[in-house]
Amino acid sequence: MFIKRTDLALEARELWQESAERTTRLMGVKATKSKLEGYPVTRVDILDHRGEEALGKPQGSYFTIDLTTFWQRKADFFERAVRAVGTELKALLPVEGSALVVGLGNAAMTPDAVGPLALDSVLITRHLLSAMPKQFAGFRPVSAFRTGVLGTTGVESAEAVRGLVAEVQPAMVLAIDALASRRCGRVCATVQLSDTGIIPGSGVGNHRAALNRETLGVPVFAIGVPTVVDSATLAADILEESGVEKVDEERLRGEHDAFMVTTRDIDQQVRDLSKVVGYGINWALQDLEIEEMNALLS
Amino acid sequence: MFIKRTDLALEARELWQESAERTTRLMGVKATKSKLEGYPVTRVDILDHRGEEALGKPQGSYFTIDLTTFWQRKADFFERAVRAVGTELKALLPVEGSALVVGLGNAAMTPDAVGPLALDSVLITRHLLSAMPKQFAGFRPVSAFRTGVLGTTGVESAEAVRGLVAEVQPAMVLAIDALASRRCGRVCATVQLSDTGIIPGSGVGNHRAALNRETLGVPVFAIGVPTVVDSATLAADILEESGVEKVDEERLRGEHDAFMVTTRDIDQQVRDLSKVVGYGINWALQDLEIEEMNALLS
Amino acid sequence: MFIKRTDLALEARELWQESAERTTRLMGVKATKSKLEGYPVTRVDILDHRGEEALGKPQGSYFTIDLTTFWQRKADFFERAVRAVGTELKALLPVEGSALVVGLGNAAMTPDAVGPLALDSVLITRHLLSAMPKQFAGFRPVSAFRTGVLGTTGVESAEAVRGLVAEVQPAMVLAIDALASRRCGRVCATVQLSDTGIIPGSGVGNHRAALNRETLGVPVFAIGVPTVVDSATLAADILEESGVEKVDEERLRGEHDAFMVTTRDIDQQVRDLSKVVGYGINWALQDLEIEEMNALLS
Amino acid sequence: MFIKRTDLALEARELWQESAERTTRLMGVKATKSKLEGYPVTRVDILDHRGEEALGKPQGSYFTIDLTTFWQRKADFFERAVRAVGTELKALLPVEGSALVVGLGNAAMTPDAVGPLALDSVLITRHLLSAMPKQFAGFRPVSAFRTGVLGTTGVESAEAVRGLVAEVQPAMVLAIDALASRRCGRVCATVQLSDTGIIPGSGVGNHRAALNRETLGVPVFAIGVPTVVDSATLAADILEESGVEKVDEERLRGEHDAFMVTTRDIDQQVRDLSKVVGYGINWALQDLEIEEMNALLS
Repeated sequence: MFIKRTDLALEARELWQESAERTTRLMGVKATKSKLEGYPVTRVDILDHRGEEALGKPQGSYFTIDLTTFWQRKADFFERAVRAVGTELKALLPVEGSALVVGLGNAAMTPDAVGPLALDSVLITRHLLSAMPKQFAGFRPVSAFRTGVLGTTGVESAEAVRGLVAEVQPAMVLAIDALASRRCGRVCATVQLSDTGIIPGSGVGNHRAALNRETLGVPVFAIGVPTVVDSATLAADILEESGVEKVDEERLRGEHDAFMVTTRDIDQQVRDLSKVVGYGINWALQDLEIEEMNALLS
Repeated sequence: MFIKRTDLALEARELWQESAERTTRLMGVKATKSKLEGYPVTRVDILDHRGEEALGKPQGSYFTIDLTTFWQRKADFFERAVRAVGTELKALLPVEGSALVVGLGNAAMTPDAVGPLALDSVLITRHLLSAMPKQFAGFRPVSAFRTGVLGTTGVESAEAVRGLVAEVQPAMVLAIDALASRRCGRVCATVQLSDTGIIPGSGVGNHRAALNRETLGVPVFAIGVPTVVDSATLAADILEESGVEKVDEERLRGEHDAFMVTTRDIDQQVRDLSKVVGYGINWALQDLEIEEMNALLS
Repeated sequence: MFIKRTDLALEARELWQESAERTTRLMGVKATKSKLEGYPVTRVDILDHRGEEALGKPQGSYFTIDLTTFWQRKADFFERAVRAVGTELKALLPVEGSALVVGLGNAAMTPDAVGPLALDSVLITRHLLSAMPKQFAGFRPVSAFRTGVLGTTGVESAEAVRGLVAEVQPAMVLAIDALASRRCGRVCATVQLSDTGIIPGSGVGNHRAALNRETLGVPVFAIGVPTVVDSATLAADILEESGVEKVDEERLRGEHDAFMVTTRDIDQQVRDLSKVVGYGINWALQDLEIEEMNALLS
Repeated sequence: MFIKRTDLALEARELWQESAERTTRLMGVKATKSKLEGYPVTRVDILDHRGEEALGKPQGSYFTIDLTTFWQRKADFFERAVRAVGTELKALLPVEGSALVVGLGNAAMTPDAVGPLALDSVLITRHLLSAMPKQFAGFRPVSAFRTGVLGTTGVESAEAVRGLVAEVQPAMVLAIDALASRRCGRVCATVQLSDTGIIPGSGVGNHRAALNRETLGVPVFAIGVPTVVDSATLAADILEESGVEKVDEERLRGEHDAFMVTTRDIDQQVRDLSKVVGYGINWALQDLEIEEMNALLS
């Protein structure tokens, strides 16, 4: 069992490979690399039970889009990021049908606010299509849900989403959440897409009931942005890199469990990436140019 | 049909009585007055179909607590208001069972923010009871839902609440909303409680699907605070009071439909009354003193 | 003395003309009409003391840009509104020098939030020019100040701005505030620009110390958006339009003083017009296209 | 020069003592311990130039109130914390005269929001005293200023405060800010008071111009709450505790400079401690019980 915690399939694979004991080949996992709009993309497929066990994640496809160069703000960095995220997401989603987009996380906690913030950039169309079907012909019906925080609702996100899915009957759920990375360098520099659903609150809070096809009855696609590194994971990495051979995992975990590492610019970074995610979802679901999204969302 | 719009049963009765043509007695409606904690209370019971037709509101009991003197801020004005609202509400509610409290309205629109703001003062206990049943023995399970605004969710409040009720299975729903009064003097000076459910958005927005026992399958209690006066209603009243005999209702409605009247202090008043409502709900549902609520909510 | 309250010079002139007693010509006031980017513009010049007394406003130029058709959302409505506001403002301002932009009003009160909201769309450059003079060559130094609310600062807006002006020494102050109109039709449908300074809080709150060249020592330009109608003014208008000859002004004022009339869509409208104002300021001060503003503000 | 960064005088002293090379006595620094309301208090006096150089902080008194047990939420934990902070602060402040309370930091960044949040719990009285001197006789005049963020104002906090001080002419400035601690255990578990002024943004952002008697012309008292640990400092500590002898400080600094460590509960913790700070200021400045503050602030 890893002390090093990550929500990224890419990093789970890295951790498996780094692990000193692994002399065997990693079976049931396939990784491929490509580039989209100037941003590197890594695809990790967990193919079977062996892959699931090795990486501790459910079977499915995980795309990691590396947005490190986003922050250099070179030509069209925003538009390229939207198209990169949107294009990969579009390839993952059913080609038609309505979507319920769920923003997980705590809007009042900056590194956990990706979900609710991204929803501000998602085009909500379900009510418009039902009120003005002609004017909005060609749009897919999209609705949204902000789960809020357990302490202020008393209801688990999975319960609330399940209730809403039963009413709204979307063809798919898209769930947006903040994630934990294992490497500082990936914090606010990566977007992970997957077709496997999500366990809310992995990034900042506690583990909760999963949102996936089993619990919701419809396919669930996850869009995650790593915004924190687990403090114990960071500590373990620091020690190993410095040649400390025997890391007392339990002690590190105990001392660091209440802490997380995030960036000093987290407010600006979360705001920018949330917009990339929201626009990427519009790109994947609707047949619109970015300028049209600007006009519709203003 | 009245041009004069009100969400208060008390005022619907007044309007019926003012109406020049009424020389007959109002059948199917009973009104009684009392005083609680220094605040006047009027109870209007709509007893049957005749009452429903006359007042344009569903059968049931409506309590109006007159908080006009709240703003004089005399001794214990807040505590007395909480106990007055809480005591009337308690008498209306089932003596046991869990509650889902729904805050209707738009948190970003000051006169419409009563619902979401009041929830900040409601003790949310459902998750605590399930995680720590011993420590929270004696509390009733309470969960909360902020419906948000149709434009940002794509889902009608009634749909979303119905889905949540199916999951959470509360014994009752309490729905908090901003209302429209017919008189400026009642704006931010009244709380109306009823056992009849509610049609969201009466106060500020458009009419929507009802939240009541028929649509949700559990009893629905409404807690409303008038925060606006319909601009056309105000205009009609002004004209009549000045002796103008023939008011062109259609024209007034047309000219004023897009407008509402509210107080210059609406931000402070909505904040204060939302706290009264939240604490009043705690008073009705939990066996707690106000100081204990302060401690638990801080 | 008018009971009818307005912050628009255009309407002060209308009121003077409507007044039954005026059979003489209005001296010391000049009004001219034009059109810019499809939006009608009325310029009222108060030329001397006679004009000041007649209209109850200080000598200077007042431009009212009529944005009624903005809400039809026809082609380029936003860009045209920005250029219309920006072009008129640019003609009013000194051609060079730094600016301090002051957002007056209460961010927590929707109809009073124009000032603070508009600042979110203003390019703040003073610190950038001082840190990276080469990269930002060509930009004018712009700083911003949100005055907040007297109850939460204890300091009058004019005092706080005066202190800041002494430190920052801008060549001019631009002050943004919500205004009161006399006509519902102008609420959220007009922007008034003037070179006369401003008395904060006219729109929603109480009168305060003025921000103008006398009190601040630098020229003060006001940008106002009417978001409310005084409830007593509305009542008086309603009565007059219905032929009531003798309006008891004192009574109306007494009954309605605590109330204001605003639109049901005030949250969306204030958000949209605040963006027009912020971008209009950028247009007037910086040499930028709207798309460049989008990129710099995102 | 320490790589280990801290804003706490207490920790600067610890670091000096830990430093392997120090075999001499620390001159010019005096530390004393006591207990107040059940919370341990450490006082560090930097007496002269030797102390200043050794600890890298200006001459003056620094009180650290250890609120670790606050989170056990035992009897009266909040009231005791308010009295502990308030009593120490009162002893530090001039016995009379008006105060300007400055909330430094970014309200939109949870670990940096202590300053603006604390102001929500400070009684603002200056305008009340001037409007109703009789009713508020006995209160000290208190005003408040939220500096905001350089990127949205273009003005350094020190500049803006200096301008306001010149206008308002307070007898003293109290400056509230988030701090950086060197130890995770002190994050959200400590309040530091000092009579030395403050350099804003030490905790989260970049170093800025100081707020102190030299720059403002009046005594400046600082109230700080550590909410983050510098990521490089944490890394260095982890390595040393594990026996790594040679820490490459430059590399650590480079890798970790963009990161900070904070608690997973930072939103709740910052909210609670901001209230302690605000109430503590009221305790120090006004002659009020905590219940009276509750009533006045509600």
